[in-house]
Amino acid sequence: MVLGYRAVCQECDYETSNPLDFRCPCDSVLELVIEEPFRREKIAHHEMGMWRYVEAYPYLRGKDLVTLGEGWTPLVKFKEGVMFKLEFLNPTGSFKDRGASSLISAIRDEVLSREGFVAEDSSGNAGASIAAYSARAGIKARIYVPASASGSKVQQIEAYGAEIVKIEGNRQKLTETAMKEEEGKFYVGHVYHPAFRDGMRTLAYEIYEQLNWSAPDHIFLPVSAGTLLLGVIKGFKHLLSSGEINEMPKIVACQSEIVSPVYHKLRGTSYSPPETTRSIADALISTNPPLLDLMIKELRSSGDAEVVTENEILNAYRELALSGFYVEPSSAVAYAAYKKWSREGRLERHDRTVVILTGHGLKSPFLPNL
Amino acid sequence: MVLGYRAVCQECDYETSNPLDFRCPCDSVLELVIEEPFRREKIAHHEMGMWRYVEAYPYLRGKDLVTLGEGWTPLVKFKEGVMFKLEFLNPTGSFKDRGASSLISAIRDEVLSREGFVAEDSSGNAGASIAAYSARAGIKARIYVPASASGSKVQQIEAYGAEIVKIEGNRQKLTETAMKEEEGKFYVGHVYHPAFRDGMRTLAYEIYEQLNWSAPDHIFLPVSAGTLLLGVIKGFKHLLSSGEINEMPKIVACQSEIVSPVYHKLRGTSYSPPETTRSIADALISTNPPLLDLMIKELRSSGDAEVVTENEILNAYRELALSGFYVEPSSAVAYAAYKKWSREGRLERHDRTVVILTGHGLKSPFLPNL
Repeated sequence: MVLGYRAVCQECDYETSNPLDFRCPCDSVLELVIEEPFRREKIAHHEMGMWRYVEAYPYLRGKDLVTLGEGWTPLVKFKEGVMFKLEFLNPTGSFKDRGASSLISAIRDEVLSREGFVAEDSSGNAGASIAAYSARAGIKARIYVPASASGSKVQQIEAYGAEIVKIEGNRQKLTETAMKEEEGKFYVGHVYHPAFRDGMRTLAYEIYEQLNWSAPDHIFLPVSAGTLLLGVIKGFKHLLSSGEINEMPKIVACQSEIVSPVYHKLRGTSYSPPETTRSIADALISTNPPLLDLMIKELRSSGDAEVVTENEILNAYRELALSGFYVEPSSAVAYAAYKKWSREGRLERHDRTVVILTGHGLKSPFLPNL
Repeated sequence: MVLGYRAVCQECDYETSNPLDFRCPCDSVLELVIEEPFRREKIAHHEMGMWRYVEAYPYLRGKDLVTLGEGWTPLVKFKEGVMFKLEFLNPTGSFKDRGASSLISAIRDEVLSREGFVAEDSSGNAGASIAAYSARAGIKARIYVPASASGSKVQQIEAYGAEIVKIEGNRQKLTETAMKEEEGKFYVGHVYHPAFRDGMRTLAYEIYEQLNWSAPDHIFLPVSAGTLLLGVIKGFKHLLSSGEINEMPKIVACQSEIVSPVYHKLRGTSYSPPETTRSIADALISTNPPLLDLMIKELRSSGDAEVVTENEILNAYRELALSGFYVEPSSAVAYAAYKKWSREGRLERHDRTVVILTGHGLKSPFLPNL
């Protein structure tokens, strides 16, 4: 039971203040309720990272935060009208650190008062984050990863001292296996857990502050499980309801053609996922994400979706690296989608666009021969 | 000829305002002269990275800076009295980005007015930095690397579009070959170039600002060619001469036993470098650094040196990763030295220590079997 922590089910009337509840007993999604408005004057400007916004997190105020220096990543002008938000410069090399910091901070005391153990399933980046923040908090982590997860990501998870369990099959199978094995034990499930995606709100606040207290016109970001998308939308909605901004930015959920359930559901077109996914955007593998309905609901009011081909991803990836931005191919999906919109004349000349670059190039092998 | 750019030889009376002069015609080291005091009120607080201190760089004021969002890296409390400065969270994964940003910003116009080409020799991290900032600036880069340079670092340099030339032999041989091949052409030599190490001054200003306008008691940092060490000392000396601080922090140059020319020269003991260096600290390979005399001179007045064994490096590396800080083994040298001083009672109980973590763990393979 954590003070100020109130998670409510999106389907039934269940409500909880126990941060170990990663989803509702009815199997639906829990959402954290933030009742207070965002207050600019409450920002802790002496804090260098995302916890300058700790006042916007009632359930973490006054707690010992589990931090590795996450957040306050650079927002760099790329060319006229386009900025990159360098989320790959978070401590473990991806934006997931925001969620791991808020989640592990929220549950640490409860976890340590039991057996000091968490279990998680991840295609790589979230696993590294949960492993790192668990290590920092003195918690043992067991990470279920797809058998196909790439070498350096698995090595990184191991380096943080986590136990690794490799599972054959797609992303859905991975989650099901982890949940079954860890049933009633230590599963924290970042994909479901409301305190994980709640950490992503800070990204909206940062963009707002770094743009001198304004919102951009568009934000392009890659989408797989949806924690980044939903957290960023929630953050901007919070700014809107608090009177800080007058209009939501248009948030564009970007996917590969191979893994595009969000794009198709939003358009009402059919999508049959392949048995195994072989996109070079290998961190985006959620063919049937548990948060799909929630994403569609949010995108209908404040966003859009786009898909790009393997070739477009590869070209975007190369262009980014040749411009000095070395990111993993999955991150290039968002830039590829931005290029597509730009090419098709779907952006106004004076628009301000932010493209979120999510994962470090050092996490994935360079692909010179593709 | 760049306005406000004045480099003077440390041996003869040569002076130059041409930023393409990487060293004196007499072969000695050039040093940039900074005549104006550091002024706290001139900091550009709206700038998110190290260029908040651009006013302390007379030769870069008003110029189009070549930036990828470098600097303003997190300073994270590790435990009582010890903070980590996370330099591995710079854009290419190492502290070298500070130097690459200042160097490429200083020389871009001159380079582009010739054939738009630079050549450099590097054991990996500086090569990646020079390649990335050249890419950003629209300059072609040719990087000479040791044949032993590790896979992911070379891949990263290639990703930025640089041409790679592999050279057998030690660090000294590498520099000699690059200088000979590129004689009178495009060599910029980050090890020699005063504008490269001058960028490291920002690290001193940042630590000072992040510690709420005070200097720590000790700074532990790894030393190979010496650009980090000399830049940080220069920054703190600038703060001292400007009346911002009253006393220099003690700066401890940390090396592996295998590659320890600075340690031995400072103590007056003999050092015979091995023919090939096989330390797990594989980014620290300068057995005979060109800046050695300058380092010794500076360390005599404001520092000290320490060496650590392979085992101490490995233990420090493991402890860092198991605490959530995934750095390359070379970075662990500084933490290993700190642990040694702490163990030997050489630090006061109330001392404030900063350990600089220089390179990303994703740059080097994890070493579970060592």
